[in-house]
Amino acid sequence: MDIIMNQVSDTNFYPAGFKSVSLNLGIKDKTKDFLCVYSTAPCTASGVFTQSRFAGPSVEISRSHINDGRAQAIVAISKNANVATGLQGKKDAEIIVNFVSSTLGIKPSDVLIASTGVIGKRYPMEKIISKLSNFDSLMVDGGFEDGAEAIMTTDTVPKISFCEIGNGKLVGIAKGVGMMEPNMATLFAFFFTDVKIEGSELDKIFKNVMDRTFNCLSIDTDTSTSDSAVILSNGSSGNADHKEFESALYKVSESLVKSIAKDGEGATKLIQVNVKGAESYIQAKKVAKSIVNSPLVKTAVHGEDPNWGRVAMAIGKCEDEASINSEKTSISFCGIEVYPRPVTEKELHDLEVRLKNDEISIDVDLGVGHNIATVWGCDLSSEYVRINGEYTT
Amino acid sequence: MDIIMNQVSDTNFYPAGFKSVSLNLGIKDKTKDFLCVYSTAPCTASGVFTQSRFAGPSVEISRSHINDGRAQAIVAISKNANVATGLQGKKDAEIIVNFVSSTLGIKPSDVLIASTGVIGKRYPMEKIISKLSNFDSLMVDGGFEDGAEAIMTTDTVPKISFCEIGNGKLVGIAKGVGMMEPNMATLFAFFFTDVKIEGSELDKIFKNVMDRTFNCLSIDTDTSTSDSAVILSNGSSGNADHKEFESALYKVSESLVKSIAKDGEGATKLIQVNVKGAESYIQAKKVAKSIVNSPLVKTAVHGEDPNWGRVAMAIGKCEDEASINSEKTSISFCGIEVYPRPVTEKELHDLEVRLKNDEISIDVDLGVGHNIATVWGCDLSSEYVRINGEYTT
Repeated sequence: MDIIMNQVSDTNFYPAGFKSVSLNLGIKDKTKDFLCVYSTAPCTASGVFTQSRFAGPSVEISRSHINDGRAQAIVAISKNANVATGLQGKKDAEIIVNFVSSTLGIKPSDVLIASTGVIGKRYPMEKIISKLSNFDSLMVDGGFEDGAEAIMTTDTVPKISFCEIGNGKLVGIAKGVGMMEPNMATLFAFFFTDVKIEGSELDKIFKNVMDRTFNCLSIDTDTSTSDSAVILSNGSSGNADHKEFESALYKVSESLVKSIAKDGEGATKLIQVNVKGAESYIQAKKVAKSIVNSPLVKTAVHGEDPNWGRVAMAIGKCEDEASINSEKTSISFCGIEVYPRPVTEKELHDLEVRLKNDEISIDVDLGVGHNIATVWGCDLSSEYVRINGEYTT
Repeated sequence: MDIIMNQVSDTNFYPAGFKSVSLNLGIKDKTKDFLCVYSTAPCTASGVFTQSRFAGPSVEISRSHINDGRAQAIVAISKNANVATGLQGKKDAEIIVNFVSSTLGIKPSDVLIASTGVIGKRYPMEKIISKLSNFDSLMVDGGFEDGAEAIMTTDTVPKISFCEIGNGKLVGIAKGVGMMEPNMATLFAFFFTDVKIEGSELDKIFKNVMDRTFNCLSIDTDTSTSDSAVILSNGSSGNADHKEFESALYKVSESLVKSIAKDGEGATKLIQVNVKGAESYIQAKKVAKSIVNSPLVKTAVHGEDPNWGRVAMAIGKCEDEASINSEKTSISFCGIEVYPRPVTEKELHDLEVRLKNDEISIDVDLGVGHNIATVWGCDLSSEYVRINGEYTT
């Protein structure tokens, strides 16, 4: 099995039977803001969506359409989230879904929709519908690189990852840089495969992998109203081993998650936190998230400051975890144990050097069990503040 | 009842019978880093402390010493938290408590201790003990302004507030600007009163007021390992009405909390979030905290950007609150309703003008019950990142 990382433009890695079109509809500026991926054959499908109580109509519609485990097309609109837009916002989303389904000649319930961008503004519907006339004639085979670009908002690079599974192929594209602590999915991760997997098994594998990858990512603790992760499998390359498929999906997802963390708004460093020795997976993940989300840990990493005491603080603030005990815990920063054994001058110097790297690891052993979790995030910079103070409605 | 706000230097407002001394022990630099407040008479006392699983020995000792509802002195050391320092750190704290109690001629168990500053470093014990010789001879009546200064770390202004209750007086001093989402207390709030209140009643009132004030404050979601809030009542002015006392304590606390939020690391604006129409107080506070803690809401306020959609996002991410419904919710930003009624151009202009103020209010009505909560926080600026990337061990 071979994993090819981001932005490789080699059509040999495209799963068979998928077409797409990426366009500028002029929603905000001149950059691409529309993607439609279409499978010529019906697909088994699975999806996970934001748990937000302010989820938008795109999430509501997709959640309902994917319920039967089938889908054939995904429409993604960037630069406007169509959230908190009331009844009219829901009608707008339905009009787009119906327009796309009738153009492609498939059922509306086989079309999924995802929207991302500013919250609280209606779509410019006239512009959208007029620019979408005959969009099907512009479809190309694959086209995933353009698709990865079309779904970007404040992303600075497209995120795409490929993998082979036996004779089959899997591609994933994703976007997201801020408003990012996915719960059940992140702000857009789309996977397409020609491997044949029955619906219930696909669902199980997909949800498991999303939970261990995208749900272990946090840029800024802010859970989006629009998070959507979806996989379509058209089966054209035949059956594959399920274990091998799950492993491939995990690797593609992990690769996308790392790309997203590295491209976090204003980020200069990827932070990976590994927690072991926990009494449960939930405890391990909670502690890891507490560390990766701590503004003080994030600013220390940004400032390349070996202030590991803030990691102790972030573990300590998991107050409900009664089994956590400072006397059983050990902490390593960039591979150097800093607690409980006191750090030597030489180690402190090494730590300062290692903190200049682009990828920073923090390892914690809670010493109370045998469960592990890994999460990913990024540092907090002045640039994050600048980007989000200026991202005007 | 009259409330005099911060930094008023009028000894008429001092509660009777309290002495203090503020010193520089040279723990980090030349600024004051030691405070001891001593009551000539025994006091009833109540305290609340951090719930951190990495709480330091100062918190452990104070929690144990205040258990009998009595205390007579508080020692506070700033610039070093004495946390994650192992068994030796605990011995160091005990040595200081014993030294102070023998100098003052009171029992060690009537001395409370609090420490704040960098985590993971031992106290410079020789320096501390040598500089503390005869510290009792330097004690002055009151001295609360100097005390408020002595407990500062990265604070830019001392926080102090006074209040009269009948013939009695109440003073509160506090510190804290970062690593700040108190849970049961904040990083140092000390209250002294000459009003006579029996121990069990004092405890009830104190915990209730702390829960509605200091526990409703968040600068950066990072709960300190050292949070300590304590009240000492020496009773020298006689009895007071309990309701009046509680009201005075609330006002002094609220005043300190607002001072702390305004002085949050890098903060330029105070944010006050009021949530009403909640099905419980816990729900109201959870939603309010989610808003005040959202980095995207905080950066929008910092950038004076009327991006109210982020408030909707922050409400929505309270995923466990099943009764929250976007169709029942309304949101006002700086007193202007922005959701569900669409904002007019005129209102958007007014909102932009109001966002230039130093104090920003966000009001939410969840429309599902009758409970309310108010919380306080501040904006997120590049200065926060600079301060915390450079606050070196």
